[in-house]
Amino acid sequence: MSRTTRPLVISAPEPRTLELIFRPEAYERLTEKYDIHETRACALADLPDDVLGRARYIIGQPPIARETLARMKSLRCIFNVESNLLDNMPYEVLFQRGIHVVTTGLVFADPVAEMGLALALNLARGIVDADLDFREGRELWGGDGNRKARLLSGSEIGIIGFGDLGRALNRLLSGFRARIRVFDPWLPPSMLHEAGVEPASLETVLSSSDFIFVVAAVTSENEGFLDARAFASMRAGAAFILLSRAAVVDFDALMEAVRQGRIVAASDVFPQEPLPRNHPVRSLKGFLRSAHRAGALDVAFKRMGDMVLEDMDLLDRGLPPMRCKRAERETVTRMRSKPVDRN
Amino acid sequence: MSRTTRPLVISAPEPRTLELIFRPEAYERLTEKYDIHETRACALADLPDDVLGRARYIIGQPPIARETLARMKSLRCIFNVESNLLDNMPYEVLFQRGIHVVTTGLVFADPVAEMGLALALNLARGIVDADLDFREGRELWGGDGNRKARLLSGSEIGIIGFGDLGRALNRLLSGFRARIRVFDPWLPPSMLHEAGVEPASLETVLSSSDFIFVVAAVTSENEGFLDARAFASMRAGAAFILLSRAAVVDFDALMEAVRQGRIVAASDVFPQEPLPRNHPVRSLKGFLRSAHRAGALDVAFKRMGDMVLEDMDLLDRGLPPMRCKRAERETVTRMRSKPVDRN
Amino acid sequence: MSRTTRPLVISAPEPRTLELIFRPEAYERLTEKYDIHETRACALADLPDDVLGRARYIIGQPPIARETLARMKSLRCIFNVESNLLDNMPYEVLFQRGIHVVTTGLVFADPVAEMGLALALNLARGIVDADLDFREGRELWGGDGNRKARLLSGSEIGIIGFGDLGRALNRLLSGFRARIRVFDPWLPPSMLHEAGVEPASLETVLSSSDFIFVVAAVTSENEGFLDARAFASMRAGAAFILLSRAAVVDFDALMEAVRQGRIVAASDVFPQEPLPRNHPVRSLKGFLRSAHRAGALDVAFKRMGDMVLEDMDLLDRGLPPMRCKRAERETVTRMRSKPVDRN
Amino acid sequence: MSRTTRPLVISAPEPRTLELIFRPEAYERLTEKYDIHETRACALADLPDDVLGRARYIIGQPPIARETLARMKSLRCIFNVESNLLDNMPYEVLFQRGIHVVTTGLVFADPVAEMGLALALNLARGIVDADLDFREGRELWGGDGNRKARLLSGSEIGIIGFGDLGRALNRLLSGFRARIRVFDPWLPPSMLHEAGVEPASLETVLSSSDFIFVVAAVTSENEGFLDARAFASMRAGAAFILLSRAAVVDFDALMEAVRQGRIVAASDVFPQEPLPRNHPVRSLKGFLRSAHRAGALDVAFKRMGDMVLEDMDLLDRGLPPMRCKRAERETVTRMRSKPVDRN
Repeated sequence: MSRTTRPLVISAPEPRTLELIFRPEAYERLTEKYDIHETRACALADLPDDVLGRARYIIGQPPIARETLARMKSLRCIFNVESNLLDNMPYEVLFQRGIHVVTTGLVFADPVAEMGLALALNLARGIVDADLDFREGRELWGGDGNRKARLLSGSEIGIIGFGDLGRALNRLLSGFRARIRVFDPWLPPSMLHEAGVEPASLETVLSSSDFIFVVAAVTSENEGFLDARAFASMRAGAAFILLSRAAVVDFDALMEAVRQGRIVAASDVFPQEPLPRNHPVRSLKGFLRSAHRAGALDVAFKRMGDMVLEDMDLLDRGLPPMRCKRAERETVTRMRSKPVDRN
Repeated sequence: MSRTTRPLVISAPEPRTLELIFRPEAYERLTEKYDIHETRACALADLPDDVLGRARYIIGQPPIARETLARMKSLRCIFNVESNLLDNMPYEVLFQRGIHVVTTGLVFADPVAEMGLALALNLARGIVDADLDFREGRELWGGDGNRKARLLSGSEIGIIGFGDLGRALNRLLSGFRARIRVFDPWLPPSMLHEAGVEPASLETVLSSSDFIFVVAAVTSENEGFLDARAFASMRAGAAFILLSRAAVVDFDALMEAVRQGRIVAASDVFPQEPLPRNHPVRSLKGFLRSAHRAGALDVAFKRMGDMVLEDMDLLDRGLPPMRCKRAERETVTRMRSKPVDRN
Repeated sequence: MSRTTRPLVISAPEPRTLELIFRPEAYERLTEKYDIHETRACALADLPDDVLGRARYIIGQPPIARETLARMKSLRCIFNVESNLLDNMPYEVLFQRGIHVVTTGLVFADPVAEMGLALALNLARGIVDADLDFREGRELWGGDGNRKARLLSGSEIGIIGFGDLGRALNRLLSGFRARIRVFDPWLPPSMLHEAGVEPASLETVLSSSDFIFVVAAVTSENEGFLDARAFASMRAGAAFILLSRAAVVDFDALMEAVRQGRIVAASDVFPQEPLPRNHPVRSLKGFLRSAHRAGALDVAFKRMGDMVLEDMDLLDRGLPPMRCKRAERETVTRMRSKPVDRN
Repeated sequence: MSRTTRPLVISAPEPRTLELIFRPEAYERLTEKYDIHETRACALADLPDDVLGRARYIIGQPPIARETLARMKSLRCIFNVESNLLDNMPYEVLFQRGIHVVTTGLVFADPVAEMGLALALNLARGIVDADLDFREGRELWGGDGNRKARLLSGSEIGIIGFGDLGRALNRLLSGFRARIRVFDPWLPPSMLHEAGVEPASLETVLSSSDFIFVVAAVTSENEGFLDARAFASMRAGAAFILLSRAAVVDFDALMEAVRQGRIVAASDVFPQEPLPRNHPVRSLKGFLRSAHRAGALDVAFKRMGDMVLEDMDLLDRGLPPMRCKRAERETVTRMRSKPVDRN
């Protein structure tokens, strides 16, 4: 393709970088097919008209003013590679014009689901403390060390939220012959049935599960919805695994429920990140901690570039993007998950 | 059923107990259908002729002398509930007479497989050390903490031994879209294909796996077969998870491979159990320890009773046992897994 | 809910009827939650302003003039229950305004997939002719009757088009351990990989399959794309099963390929429906005929109502519809599948 | 291997032939590893002592007299490739000596299961008569032709007998989201649960199924157990698919139930094979006929040789056979399935 006829891509992926999200071969493919104009997110409005006017895609999630958008006559799709939707662009205009805004958060589904399963199995079998005891010569052998041990196999499992991550988790659990109930008010029950899980109310999920995985995004409606009352309704000794965002739980109430020994818990996310040195969760028994490490694997970031290329290929042929997740007119402004400022 | 016509069961399950292996309702069913004669394993020969002569089943794995066996005219099946076959009864006579010897080790397959998966995920994500770091305020956040992290999803996995435990593990892995190779010289390749795994040589499994699970029983032929040379042929950084018996590996060589940082490892079994207080594996970095806790869950022991009852029901109707695993004439004398002396 | 505050639904589902698509209990739920205004499709423009202005949903696929749409201030979604998208409404305006147009064709996926599998198995085993022979006493027994018989199990299967129907078919085939290749240019390859099938070019699907299922919708670009050359590239003796629309094949070329004995075929759809009495396909050996019966089961129609209710429930709560399939701005005008005029 | 040290195989596979059951490459492997002594089944006793004494394996199911067996000092395994166990050898002696008798009937499981599914789908959708109607121009289009049509998807399915064939059928049905109940008194309920099906009584299977597959072998206890009373207890309109042997049903009662329109049926097996020209089943409406063609595919026969070779390889290494199915001491004399006299 001659350079002048190649479609133009504006690249402003910060805090990601093109190097982070494209494998070398994928980057090569990107630059073979497209002209890339790299810029800082904050400098988008300063680009000349011929660049803005020619741009077919944006890789990134820069703030876009209404006037800037008006200058972008050829824009077809914005690839948000941070993957949380921010209130920094005129979505209504984008939807009217049929410009897609898509996110690549799917890449985190497998890594976070694996971490979630790992945390659940750790809680079920007490692996961390058993290894510490072993290091120090006070380990208990065989059944003596298994007084609180239990299985996921055949257990009752609750999943709160059934987006990409909930589905990935359900897939990983497919070999466990567990009974899986899902609470997700944004999905019709029949779709949950088709996925092989039981749709259930939040109350049922809380009160009938041995393991509860929280993978719901934060929205304008669900901040702190998992509170003291929710934890009080859980089965004694049940395990609570938090994987999405701390803002969906009342974190103090969660810690209190663990401190009282009512439940055990694990979390990959925290009210502040990084967390203050003296935060009480650091020494809380019955609580397993992971420092927002569940998703941020290099192999996940690299899949972002593959997803972007696949959807660009469809869009180039006049087709809708199918690989990335599209922002929805109805829900885009309800999203409240804070973006990361590091990868 | 009138007492006198009920079949007789000799119970000598030590180190198990009937209470350990039968749920209350199952125990009730057992005693409704059968006369139970409880004895010590060592006292079997001292039982009177009418007891020995009437006994249809033995629950337990007591030593049985040739002469004692000759007095047991009605014997149909010996239920070994320890689950390792010992060289303490005249198997050849048992096979000639068509008396089944069966084991209930299947009950450990799910618990051990879950532990094996947990250990593998722990090695892949460094969960123990990450939690310790978090407790002490030196945790690394996000990608910074993931320099060595990797996924099981999409990885290459090797399983050495494909009995009940190998199959349970394969089932748990079914959601991970991994490539699974199996080495098991006692099984025809087509059966492995049917189970959805690839039959492979030991060399291929060792050299082509990111995760290797060892679930092979110890036999007269395979003691120490995983040695320094085997570890040297593994991929750099691969994870070795030992779940069956320590005797199949050269444990010093395994520790040395971990110490050099060539591989990481986890083990539920050790050359001596309990292990001396000063054993070097206690402080070995890159090695995750579990004190033979993988299988010994109460829920597993309780399944033994259910299995025994199901097979007694078949045998009572003149059918072969299908639930427990039968000792095989060809291999029974090759078994070398040491029995446990605690539950 | 008081009658005056209930949302209004305009019902114009012809050729369907509300009775056809709603089970009695579903119809009851519909009328409990919504005011229903029934009309003829052609009479929509004649409705008074207060009806049009208050209508939140349309059940049906009536022609809608631009001016009529302008009067519908509250419209959120049009439920096309015929399920083929027609060029009879101003889609661009609908997309601009964020009014969803959705179809319920998913209900046909399971029935058509079952019929497709049935036709394939019939071709593989010659069941129709074998039964006819049996009736007339000239059946061949055992292997003598199996000279041309073959298995789906372990075969190579091609699927052309991977929408709801292609996915349903893939699901039904999951127990057959077949190698399944899919050609669908509207989907990114990685989504096909995730569904457990291999993305492939049309050429590869044609030349490497023992069974080919055609489930692609007719678009402005693919009319007649399966032509003499396509049939010539198929494996000798392969089976061609046509399930979507006759317009995607050159039907004469298909018949000719069957007549020559190069391939065998089955079809549920025909160039004209009903087909002229003297059409040569009626007597063509090697061709199995079904009179557009694959999808039109009462149980399928009844699921439409359930889908409509589930999505209305989401839309009522300000959420996007998830159950029915949304028309896409990029592709809506490319659709060419002819609607049915009978159920 | 020098000829003199190669193990000896006596080949007497009639009505099979080595050519039928070995692919060319498999035959080559057989003859490379083993000396083959071919004989007629009836001539076994006439073989010289050095042949009988050296023979490690028999391929075939010849009559074996007690004295002949006594001369066979090296015999390890008899491979019955007809696959029904006959009362023509002293099984008790074989069991005492630890000589395996194994069958290769597994090869028919996939073909028969596919035929069974095909027959069920045909009954559900009326495919044969619809094609005949189409040929003659009286076909009904769309829903008009579907008055009696129904789906396997989501239906209740009963399987009677859960050996290799029942399992293969269950696997083929895995994509249909059906509720599957199984009656098999020779298996413990927990094994059925593990296979993902529900154990059930015969009465429950009969009265609660939309489709019933009969895949039980004939034994001394179950001849004719599916009788008028059984058919009377079935759901109105249910489909009965007979795949194993006609002797397990009262065939006249089955025909009568179909004639009355209570149920529909399909069968691959008949009371006499071949069936008299004037047998009433030939013209019975609602009955679909297949002339014992379900299993006898060349591809199935060829798998027999592969199975034999795999188990010989295990036996050569002193291991038990795992691929073929072993005769069981308890049940071998109960088997009553008539052997075939043609392939």
